[in-house]
Amino acid sequence: MCGIVGIVDAGGVSYPLYYALYALQHRGQESAGAATFDGTTLYKQKTGGLVSEIFDESVLDSLKGTTGIGHVRYPTTGENIPENIQPFSFEFRGESIAIAHNGTLTNTQEIHDRYEGQGQIFCTTTDSELIANVIADELRISNSMEDAVLRCMHDLQGSYSVVLLHAETLYAFRDPLGIRPLCIGKTDQGYIVASESVAVDALNGTFLRDVQPGELIRIDRDGMTCTQIAKASHHAHCIFEYIYFARADSVIDGRAVYDVRWNVGRKLYEENPVEADLVSAVPDSGIAHAIGFSHRSEIQYLEALIKNRYMGRTFIMPTQKAREIAVRIKLNPVKRHVRDKSIVLVDDSIVRGTTSRRIIDLIMEAGATAVHMRIGSPPIKYPCYLGVDMPTRTELIASDKENEAVMSAIGAASLHHISLKALIEAIGIDEEDLCTGCITGVYPLPIGCEKCSPRVIDFVSGTYQSDLEGF
Amino acid sequence: MCGIVGIVDAGGVSYPLYYALYALQHRGQESAGAATFDGTTLYKQKTGGLVSEIFDESVLDSLKGTTGIGHVRYPTTGENIPENIQPFSFEFRGESIAIAHNGTLTNTQEIHDRYEGQGQIFCTTTDSELIANVIADELRISNSMEDAVLRCMHDLQGSYSVVLLHAETLYAFRDPLGIRPLCIGKTDQGYIVASESVAVDALNGTFLRDVQPGELIRIDRDGMTCTQIAKASHHAHCIFEYIYFARADSVIDGRAVYDVRWNVGRKLYEENPVEADLVSAVPDSGIAHAIGFSHRSEIQYLEALIKNRYMGRTFIMPTQKAREIAVRIKLNPVKRHVRDKSIVLVDDSIVRGTTSRRIIDLIMEAGATAVHMRIGSPPIKYPCYLGVDMPTRTELIASDKENEAVMSAIGAASLHHISLKALIEAIGIDEEDLCTGCITGVYPLPIGCEKCSPRVIDFVSGTYQSDLEGF
Amino acid sequence: MCGIVGIVDAGGVSYPLYYALYALQHRGQESAGAATFDGTTLYKQKTGGLVSEIFDESVLDSLKGTTGIGHVRYPTTGENIPENIQPFSFEFRGESIAIAHNGTLTNTQEIHDRYEGQGQIFCTTTDSELIANVIADELRISNSMEDAVLRCMHDLQGSYSVVLLHAETLYAFRDPLGIRPLCIGKTDQGYIVASESVAVDALNGTFLRDVQPGELIRIDRDGMTCTQIAKASHHAHCIFEYIYFARADSVIDGRAVYDVRWNVGRKLYEENPVEADLVSAVPDSGIAHAIGFSHRSEIQYLEALIKNRYMGRTFIMPTQKAREIAVRIKLNPVKRHVRDKSIVLVDDSIVRGTTSRRIIDLIMEAGATAVHMRIGSPPIKYPCYLGVDMPTRTELIASDKENEAVMSAIGAASLHHISLKALIEAIGIDEEDLCTGCITGVYPLPIGCEKCSPRVIDFVSGTYQSDLEGF
Amino acid sequence: MCGIVGIVDAGGVSYPLYYALYALQHRGQESAGAATFDGTTLYKQKTGGLVSEIFDESVLDSLKGTTGIGHVRYPTTGENIPENIQPFSFEFRGESIAIAHNGTLTNTQEIHDRYEGQGQIFCTTTDSELIANVIADELRISNSMEDAVLRCMHDLQGSYSVVLLHAETLYAFRDPLGIRPLCIGKTDQGYIVASESVAVDALNGTFLRDVQPGELIRIDRDGMTCTQIAKASHHAHCIFEYIYFARADSVIDGRAVYDVRWNVGRKLYEENPVEADLVSAVPDSGIAHAIGFSHRSEIQYLEALIKNRYMGRTFIMPTQKAREIAVRIKLNPVKRHVRDKSIVLVDDSIVRGTTSRRIIDLIMEAGATAVHMRIGSPPIKYPCYLGVDMPTRTELIASDKENEAVMSAIGAASLHHISLKALIEAIGIDEEDLCTGCITGVYPLPIGCEKCSPRVIDFVSGTYQSDLEGF
Repeated sequence: MCGIVGIVDAGGVSYPLYYALYALQHRGQESAGAATFDGTTLYKQKTGGLVSEIFDESVLDSLKGTTGIGHVRYPTTGENIPENIQPFSFEFRGESIAIAHNGTLTNTQEIHDRYEGQGQIFCTTTDSELIANVIADELRISNSMEDAVLRCMHDLQGSYSVVLLHAETLYAFRDPLGIRPLCIGKTDQGYIVASESVAVDALNGTFLRDVQPGELIRIDRDGMTCTQIAKASHHAHCIFEYIYFARADSVIDGRAVYDVRWNVGRKLYEENPVEADLVSAVPDSGIAHAIGFSHRSEIQYLEALIKNRYMGRTFIMPTQKAREIAVRIKLNPVKRHVRDKSIVLVDDSIVRGTTSRRIIDLIMEAGATAVHMRIGSPPIKYPCYLGVDMPTRTELIASDKENEAVMSAIGAASLHHISLKALIEAIGIDEEDLCTGCITGVYPLPIGCEKCSPRVIDFVSGTYQSDLEGF
Repeated sequence: MCGIVGIVDAGGVSYPLYYALYALQHRGQESAGAATFDGTTLYKQKTGGLVSEIFDESVLDSLKGTTGIGHVRYPTTGENIPENIQPFSFEFRGESIAIAHNGTLTNTQEIHDRYEGQGQIFCTTTDSELIANVIADELRISNSMEDAVLRCMHDLQGSYSVVLLHAETLYAFRDPLGIRPLCIGKTDQGYIVASESVAVDALNGTFLRDVQPGELIRIDRDGMTCTQIAKASHHAHCIFEYIYFARADSVIDGRAVYDVRWNVGRKLYEENPVEADLVSAVPDSGIAHAIGFSHRSEIQYLEALIKNRYMGRTFIMPTQKAREIAVRIKLNPVKRHVRDKSIVLVDDSIVRGTTSRRIIDLIMEAGATAVHMRIGSPPIKYPCYLGVDMPTRTELIASDKENEAVMSAIGAASLHHISLKALIEAIGIDEEDLCTGCITGVYPLPIGCEKCSPRVIDFVSGTYQSDLEGF
Repeated sequence: MCGIVGIVDAGGVSYPLYYALYALQHRGQESAGAATFDGTTLYKQKTGGLVSEIFDESVLDSLKGTTGIGHVRYPTTGENIPENIQPFSFEFRGESIAIAHNGTLTNTQEIHDRYEGQGQIFCTTTDSELIANVIADELRISNSMEDAVLRCMHDLQGSYSVVLLHAETLYAFRDPLGIRPLCIGKTDQGYIVASESVAVDALNGTFLRDVQPGELIRIDRDGMTCTQIAKASHHAHCIFEYIYFARADSVIDGRAVYDVRWNVGRKLYEENPVEADLVSAVPDSGIAHAIGFSHRSEIQYLEALIKNRYMGRTFIMPTQKAREIAVRIKLNPVKRHVRDKSIVLVDDSIVRGTTSRRIIDLIMEAGATAVHMRIGSPPIKYPCYLGVDMPTRTELIASDKENEAVMSAIGAASLHHISLKALIEAIGIDEEDLCTGCITGVYPLPIGCEKCSPRVIDFVSGTYQSDLEGF
Repeated sequence: MCGIVGIVDAGGVSYPLYYALYALQHRGQESAGAATFDGTTLYKQKTGGLVSEIFDESVLDSLKGTTGIGHVRYPTTGENIPENIQPFSFEFRGESIAIAHNGTLTNTQEIHDRYEGQGQIFCTTTDSELIANVIADELRISNSMEDAVLRCMHDLQGSYSVVLLHAETLYAFRDPLGIRPLCIGKTDQGYIVASESVAVDALNGTFLRDVQPGELIRIDRDGMTCTQIAKASHHAHCIFEYIYFARADSVIDGRAVYDVRWNVGRKLYEENPVEADLVSAVPDSGIAHAIGFSHRSEIQYLEALIKNRYMGRTFIMPTQKAREIAVRIKLNPVKRHVRDKSIVLVDDSIVRGTTSRRIIDLIMEAGATAVHMRIGSPPIKYPCYLGVDMPTRTELIASDKENEAVMSAIGAASLHHISLKALIEAIGIDEEDLCTGCITGVYPLPIGCEKCSPRVIDFVSGTYQSDLEGF
């Protein structure tokens, strides 16, 4: 997963980019980068680390201009090489173009082979470079960014929210299914496009609306123009953004994430009432759910676990014993709260189950009589191919275990996952407009042998040009 | 403020030191250090930054031995020079001694002048070097650490919790008034002495007890011996540890910090009932109080503000506007929670008032109808001379403003501070055994012209030797 | 200017690369890099700085495999961005290719536009990426590296010595005019191709021969094969390599650089005898010339200037006065040698004249009666377009000043440049086989409006395939 | 060995310190530091590395004030810890004092024990801290720096050239035997005291004179005052400074180092004439000798070995083979100069013999017929206790081997060391005023069981005060 942002700000773009990337840091902690343009030169800064480590005053002062884009990158296996840190930039016809994206293409190999077949060489292994190739290939013929984006939406399969800096113009577009989020805000002296609304809040901006799936936004000093390039029969907003990924204070595709989670907490009680001495959360991701559960159940909310607020980056511990201690220094049970108490513990999801096991162990060792686990998502049984870095199917504890078996594996006194129906009600978006692949195994577009419930996409215009046959 | 730890661990002391310093990171983020001894050599690592930045696997592997001490240091003005980073180490009679302490001496000048008068030079401006001088001065005569600590307790005025590494023996002692905390835990293969019990928890150790005020603990491979060196008529445990400084999951001088704060929250409602739509906290320091307030008042607890969990270190913003934004990227109001709502906002204390003003502004701008501020401490009117880094008297908003004036200055609809009486009840320690200087202006030992309610100290033995006349 | 090296070594390639780059460090100090291949993975290290700063044991241990290439880069204006540090690497048909080159293409824009016209995007602004495009473009059709290099020699104008790593095979080729040097050596367990023979010496290897202009060398574990791809009517070896650029202990295109310079020193006296008390050199570049001059003239050789051997990198001094001091800390006159003495001072060349002025000032201030300047090259009047980073024409002091005017500008008592005829005699290569552009303004290939004495190039085979019309 | 400098400069002291330390870099490459004072605050920068790595514009701008001292440190075994990097600074009576020194005390233990016996603790293991203790001890009684330096000269045994910064006053003094060099220069806006005259040259200053052995120099904005504190019957200037340590362009105790070495070269021929095809030097330390030898013998001087000018720091190679290569990348034989030639190779000294062996091997492998080794010092048979970091006695090849055996061990065709008599003549200082301990085994002050030819020291005044009995 990643976070992206594009900003036009008459007062200088680097500080706003910095604040916005800060607000999106939860979407990726491996590396970060920004590119700005001041009318003549493209300025770049990108490297491994947290936003707070990468940017300081001298760096920000060097990122000149009033238009720019930024990116935070999630640690993904295998491709952690410096070239892959975004934004990706290139020269084309004497102009600098920079691009950053969030999402995962599913027809990478096809796109790659097509351009390689034409003699194109690749400097990175990123989807961004592939998208850049599609755009450049169309630009050289039509010289129209609208056509280039139409070509992208036609050729690219998968999820992609993209920000693109072309000279002093900022472009942003979102795949026709709207899988990854992207929204627009107005600031004092310009506009911001970002993965989540918290980035708009960070600039004290006014949230305008989500970028529509299939829409292209163009912002320059004359203002903003919007073009609907493609239109799908249904959308496929990622349900996992609501479950876990987005910040609680974001509003995504019209739904406040905190309220979704709080309502899920209420429904968790309604679906499976339980008696207990107190309700608690796995911090921080289960807090909204737990408060909702407490409100509905009238069982007291109390912190059973305190999170160390100064974790920073910890290196990988060399031994198993050391890894167990690593959980302990992150989370500390409040013994006086849990001793001789039965506890409802709420978390957003269970992936491998190992963390849940360790946390329940911690609480039971601290003297609790029972831990009733309540989970804010249905069982996660299937992998995500569209941008969420999940374990492979065999690592997902729910992929081959029923509720009883998971309960026993993690050591819970009882275990209840929210039903998909209740989760969708809490979100308030039609099921057909959501991607529930990780829960149902049915994906919104064809992926290998996986089941698919495809959306039909209309292109607003068939006029984009291509000189490639059979395409 | 600072945090200290001393560990003896037959399995190697560096990793336990690392975990313990992690757990104490909230007590100081400016720098950290550790010193270990392996029978022949003293190993050291100390530098500016967070524990996670300073120590990695190669550093920890280089800190050999089974005995060691560590320190985290709070950013204090003026003396931020590398030499001052603790532990302080020195050679004496062919042996390496390392020392780390938490607290502030009030007769620094007197001690300094005495030794300077003898020709002693000082390499640092730390209290640690002064304590080292007192200890070395006595050791050269009596060769007894017990005598040296007795001499410290006799000569040193102020607060000091100290860990000291002398060859492979760990010593720890606490000033006779017990101003700063210090506790002992038992681990699988040794012992730990630390500022707070969370460090014991981090090692999965068993909390044994607090170090007694005036007590000296000696730990080596043969076990632990305890000597009561001095005994005061009353103690003077810092009340601000309970109010703000200690981690909520610590237990200090027998009282669980979380429960103190939760009870303070209940009493805040009882002392001054208010009607409102929801109760919220300034994260993270006001959460325990707010949950207690919600429990007692039956007003729903809901997060009005979400804290950015990835702040890291932010550089100082160059302009006023930038500083305002800095608050905004740390805390984001959840607009849908606060719009058209009256809110009880609970925080642990008000110091300068500027942060409270900005937070209330944020919430009111997000659409709240009223913010009722409730504070988990009485007004902080007086400076601390004993280790808490507080502003000078003139900067404390309560030093010259009554409740009405503060309320108006911060923009609150109403404002109530807990009474000292209720706070002391919530803590459960006699007022005479607490230092309430920052609230009452009466200190437990003579400090310049300040009011004082002195404790009488008996020394268990008058036998320590000194070759200095009139001393 | 740059230095390149390619090595196959059955005992592991990283340490030999390191030693070889060390020996070539004089050809570029801005950045350095290496790429190695171990049968499955391409390993890379490249960054700004000196070879000794970039590579340490852990880096070298991470550069696995028995085949690799390396590069040192000279500081050039304008394009000092991380992406441009060589080797340049890319993926093509599932294989990793890395390329490094020394030289400058003169038809960059044409090549760039051709590929951009096909939709190709560029990640760097280096000639290496252009060469990579030509190679990939041909490989996809013919799948033959020989054809690809033939295509390069056909399409590329300018100077280029190239090393290329394709899987475990090392390729090296040199432009048909042989402008930049490239030679081959045999080592205990493999082969080395490098810009200068000193790199062969550094590995204790045996110098085999220069790579022929227009020749392609292919080395893998089965040995070396050589193919003459193109053949020019005359070569155009850079005369400035002999004058200044190459190390004195290198042998380039069959001529020992030290001996060339020593003979130039002799001829400097013969062309313009002078009486003086001593002969001295501007260290280090004028030493060989000065010793030859002393030998022929029988005037005593003595060091008038001592060079600081620990200069490292000095930051750019902020003021004019500071810059003057910068010369002084680099070079110190030996007052007792120069006081009341007339001195013949020998240097390799005069470019801007400012350094000569400062050095003569230093010596005169130290008490010399006269400084007779003798220069190991004819006046440098024209820019180099083929790889030597020289000032623009207007900055060259000799471009618009006669000998008298230059003498006066630098404060010399007399000034003599070696004649072109004598220099060519000292080198021992026919004038038609040298590029003397910087001296005569006549270049060996067409460059803008400059005068040209073109070479005719025969391609050994016209069989390389291209699917591009008109090409 | 180390280099020291103290500067008063009305135009700001940091840049002059930087240039001066640059000029002294040959005296120590392990670490460097500087301390300056601006009337209120002591500014410091000191860390491991070269001068060019440690100081940049921002660091120099932070070193405010018009008075300062600096130090470069040679890598010495065992005590390479950050605390030991000089200058050493301390607070005394509210004032900052910084001190840097070059030399080695021989009664370290005695001084250490005396102060430890008074309860003094030590933060470093440097002689500087001991000297600081002596000074502070006297200052507290007499408040006179003159008395304190008198006390130093009385109590300290060994070699010490010292610069000391006390508020805005610069002090410098040199041990009564004048073992280590120290000289004074006048600059445009102030004064400089430095280990060698090249530092004066670097500031374009005028060399005034050497600091007299036993003299104290005091410089402030009112000018310079000089006091002869102690006077020895004879001096003991280190002979090894002339042989190897000092820069060739320095003038030490009235003798130009280059001329000493050049004359030694002449005498090497006179003492032992040899026929050969060419004379060459081991660069850079043997060059002056070799040029002198060539002048006297009329055998042509030619470079047989070229030194790599970009060595920087190389990490320690892990294997023997790698270490051999390390010599090869430092020095490259010019094959065409040495093939079939007999060569006189001149070096300054032979210590272990291993480097000589490797160099002669290099030249012989390159085809020379014979290498006649000529050495600019008598055999080094004894260790130095007074500041030169030499191997222990058993490692010195000459300690137990006669000329024949050494010649054979290093593979030379013939070997001649200059005689002590001739060396002393070349220096031009009476033997009684030189320390020749490393050659003769007779030292100018008592050191353990070593032979000694002690000097008698008169103190100008016996008036320094001490409150320590028996002292």
